[in-house]
Amino acid sequence: MRYELYYWPGIQGRGEFVRLALEDAGAPYRDVCRRSNRAPESPQAFAPPFLKAGKLVIPQTANILLYLGPRLGLAPGNEAQRLRLHGLQLTIADWLSEVHDTHHPIAASFYYEEQKAEARRRAGVFLAERLPKFMAYFERAVDERFSYVHLSLFQMIEGLQYAFPNAMRKMKFPKLRKLHERVARRPRLAAYLSSKRRIPFNQHGIFRRYPELDERS
Amino acid sequence: MRYELYYWPGIQGRGEFVRLALEDAGAPYRDVCRRSNRAPESPQAFAPPFLKAGKLVIPQTANILLYLGPRLGLAPGNEAQRLRLHGLQLTIADWLSEVHDTHHPIAASFYYEEQKAEARRRAGVFLAERLPKFMAYFERAVDERFSYVHLSLFQMIEGLQYAFPNAMRKMKFPKLRKLHERVARRPRLAAYLSSKRRIPFNQHGIFRRYPELDERS
Repeated sequence: MRYELYYWPGIQGRGEFVRLALEDAGAPYRDVCRRSNRAPESPQAFAPPFLKAGKLVIPQTANILLYLGPRLGLAPGNEAQRLRLHGLQLTIADWLSEVHDTHHPIAASFYYEEQKAEARRRAGVFLAERLPKFMAYFERAVDERFSYVHLSLFQMIEGLQYAFPNAMRKMKFPKLRKLHERVARRPRLAAYLSSKRRIPFNQHGIFRRYPELDERS
Repeated sequence: MRYELYYWPGIQGRGEFVRLALEDAGAPYRDVCRRSNRAPESPQAFAPPFLKAGKLVIPQTANILLYLGPRLGLAPGNEAQRLRLHGLQLTIADWLSEVHDTHHPIAASFYYEEQKAEARRRAGVFLAERLPKFMAYFERAVDERFSYVHLSLFQMIEGLQYAFPNAMRKMKFPKLRKLHERVARRPRLAAYLSSKRRIPFNQHGIFRRYPELDERS
């Protein structure tokens, strides 16, 4: 099966969570809008990313990973385990939305500069209350056994260290740090991360580096 | 199987989407924290609601409905259909989070009064851009065949009409309006809605009526 991933060109964004799974598994896929100016649209999806797999059109990142997990060897087949991983992945989705809203608390359709004051307030609460709560949860909840959730947690830590280097330097998360290092060393993933297929973090994506939103060093 | 639903007492909130499914199906369940002051906590859940089903602890509303759907006769058994419904449900979850953020755009831990100015800005964009986009998507995407997604859409419309009566009065959504009426007439659901088990909408839940956030009449 050759999968087709539809996502915005030019940013990692939510699509990256799907890319990491496909790349780590060495699955054949086409990153459809990567070099085009077409908007990734389908009447079946409210928003990108969505995945085409044969006749299926699957919207929503966590839903795509629910589908791909067992097929790519990145999740066990039994229902209890799949529900457990999916619950973790949905919590990562919530976490990611909160990261987005640190720089866009009023509207995704406004520029950052139009909501800078609100962003400062929201980012402050995010770093003080929410980030430690999410990190503590995943320190406790993450499994030993490798799955697509590990790839997504790798991406969260990678992105958070890009966006909030000072805040992240002060936080203690030994298990997640080890997980991040272990995932980065996986051969296919390491090859992907150092390839041109990996879009660099930038100021258009979900993780953005605005020093005024980070803690002081 | 007797299910146990864990959610905050005193509000409909996210737990209500699970209650509607259990009630419509006539499934035996216990609303565990309903009359207690205990916080609904489990190391396996980042936040409520979560469902206990035998040995399983299932967090995240959409994940719970993914599990319950086929068991309660509220979703077909085949994978393609289940993924499709789950994609819709996850989009409802995103929509609901945006409703929440109309009155709490900075932090859930602050009072509304501490973020009133930001709430006005965010609610304005929500009503002008986001609400019409979500409504148009579901007008187009909703299936004829009844499922748990219909119950959730009923709840969205019910809640939005409570929170934003003026904005909703101006919107055209004939299919969703018909769906809302049809769902409200389902015998077990109608009995639930007029019972004391249905917590009334109030100013502590996700849907809140702050006239200053609605459009003018």
